[in-house]
Amino acid sequence: MTSTQTRPLVGTVIGDPAGIGPEVIAKAWCSGEVHKSSRPVLIGSVEVMQKVVQDAGLKAQVRAIKSVDEISDSAEMIEILDSGALSLSDFTVGQDNASCGRASAVWLDEADRLARDGVLAATVMGPISSVSMKMAGVLDKVIKVTPGESYLFLVSGPLRVAHVTDHMPLRDVCALLSAELISSALHTLDDRLRAWGIAEPRIGVAGLNPHATGDEEVNAIAPGVQQAVANGVNAEGPVSPDAIFRQCIEGRYDAILAMYHDQGHIAIKTWGFSGNSAVIIGPPYVHLSVAHGTAYDIVGKGVADHRMILSAMTTAGSLAAGAGFPKEN
Amino acid sequence: MTSTQTRPLVGTVIGDPAGIGPEVIAKAWCSGEVHKSSRPVLIGSVEVMQKVVQDAGLKAQVRAIKSVDEISDSAEMIEILDSGALSLSDFTVGQDNASCGRASAVWLDEADRLARDGVLAATVMGPISSVSMKMAGVLDKVIKVTPGESYLFLVSGPLRVAHVTDHMPLRDVCALLSAELISSALHTLDDRLRAWGIAEPRIGVAGLNPHATGDEEVNAIAPGVQQAVANGVNAEGPVSPDAIFRQCIEGRYDAILAMYHDQGHIAIKTWGFSGNSAVIIGPPYVHLSVAHGTAYDIVGKGVADHRMILSAMTTAGSLAAGAGFPKEN
Repeated sequence: MTSTQTRPLVGTVIGDPAGIGPEVIAKAWCSGEVHKSSRPVLIGSVEVMQKVVQDAGLKAQVRAIKSVDEISDSAEMIEILDSGALSLSDFTVGQDNASCGRASAVWLDEADRLARDGVLAATVMGPISSVSMKMAGVLDKVIKVTPGESYLFLVSGPLRVAHVTDHMPLRDVCALLSAELISSALHTLDDRLRAWGIAEPRIGVAGLNPHATGDEEVNAIAPGVQQAVANGVNAEGPVSPDAIFRQCIEGRYDAILAMYHDQGHIAIKTWGFSGNSAVIIGPPYVHLSVAHGTAYDIVGKGVADHRMILSAMTTAGSLAAGAGFPKEN
Repeated sequence: MTSTQTRPLVGTVIGDPAGIGPEVIAKAWCSGEVHKSSRPVLIGSVEVMQKVVQDAGLKAQVRAIKSVDEISDSAEMIEILDSGALSLSDFTVGQDNASCGRASAVWLDEADRLARDGVLAATVMGPISSVSMKMAGVLDKVIKVTPGESYLFLVSGPLRVAHVTDHMPLRDVCALLSAELISSALHTLDDRLRAWGIAEPRIGVAGLNPHATGDEEVNAIAPGVQQAVANGVNAEGPVSPDAIFRQCIEGRYDAILAMYHDQGHIAIKTWGFSGNSAVIIGPPYVHLSVAHGTAYDIVGKGVADHRMILSAMTTAGSLAAGAGFPKEN
């Protein structure tokens, strides 16, 4: 285990209390793996965590703390910053509920504030319910991505992909791409990869069209890559989109810049590596979420797989420490 | 081994003689696997095949035949329909050459004619050089795909994907999609899957945009699927493009209809299954090619991997017999 001084404080929001977030987070905490790369603390409800620990038969105590100064740094003591936003009587597990949405928003706000104040080095968001947050009118509290400002970065073992655009129709993607946007995204990605501990990041840039032979490659992607390269970024592209992700898996690149949501998501989800996690590049701290949702149908049944949230929690610690991506991830 | 009567005659064009086609085809032939599902015959040059058999130290004889009636149906006797289109002295291995391009075109034409005449039940195309064929002005002899008429169908184990469009810029794909095109492609795909031996094909239809929530889904894909379903096709969609390929791998669908080249190609190539083969749906017979090229850099070195062409040759036999996709494929 790395010493206390170098293991960063990572705050994990327990996610929607009616979903599998609390139970997979409890399992991940008790595995002992999280403490190897970070000093974890939860943001959420003590009551909720006590119930999932009891239901899952985990050997850990759960207690509320007022400040991160109080943490015991132990896999057997789950510690939570609980601002009293929710009681167990406010909701039923497995169902959307405005109270849960409201509480999720309060916790996300607290985590964001603590990270911006420098108390937390990184935050992790357990699976939230966008329906519940919409019911409470607080969906805007979830960190969004905006092309030119922030990007979704998916990690699945050696396959790592940042997306220039997210939930945007393909025809709008074609119209939006510009040399400035590509160059700006490359600089942001390069900057973060270096901060996370990758000394000389090699970035592969996907084209937009089949075999990367279209107008957008000539007018936007190639000149954007050239601008970034001229300013010190080790980027290569546009590369044929159907080849570049396999090249990343094989070690040719540290990360890929994808032009649109499905380009990266098809690669990540079809490859089928189990430990995916999602980093948002944009906030001034490391922020991760998980690729799965609340999985209401299996809440409390003891079958929810905690590997994705565990991967997110260990990755958060490692990146915040500038120690690169964990090997097992 | 199935009886002679039920094993279809499959003709394999040896591909560009300067590339790895002849040697991987010789290795595949000598493996004995090809004869389990078909009665194979080659179309190409006896001299070229004799040289690769000798160089690779394979235990097989090579001989020219005038008609498929002469075949011995043996893994130890490589038999070729050789119209004398090429001599060994016409080219250097590992280099593009108009003679090779011209010969490739002659052989492709012969295979097409024999298949249209009902002599061959299926054809397989070894890796050709589009540069050499362009040098000879005969690139049009390679079977192309045209949306609404013919489609590229990639097979990689349980992941099978037909593409509505092929080498077309994404912005043109957005403009081209219509209910008629989707419905027509679904009928063609359904028809072929049934002919190949899949009794009640389940087809998953990918959306175009992230999470399949865009105008094209509402205006083209959904109504196209509905039309096909009303006419007896068991199709489902539009499904989120980043989820559908994994669902196919897990057995939910027999095949996926993808909207554009990279949608399917990213899934197939990133998944990394080694036995890919490519079927062209459109000609009135089964026609397969391989996903790899001529690999000039490794010709004659004994390292070329024959698994892809072997997979194409066994798949061709199996589909032409209406016996479905080979399990090992």
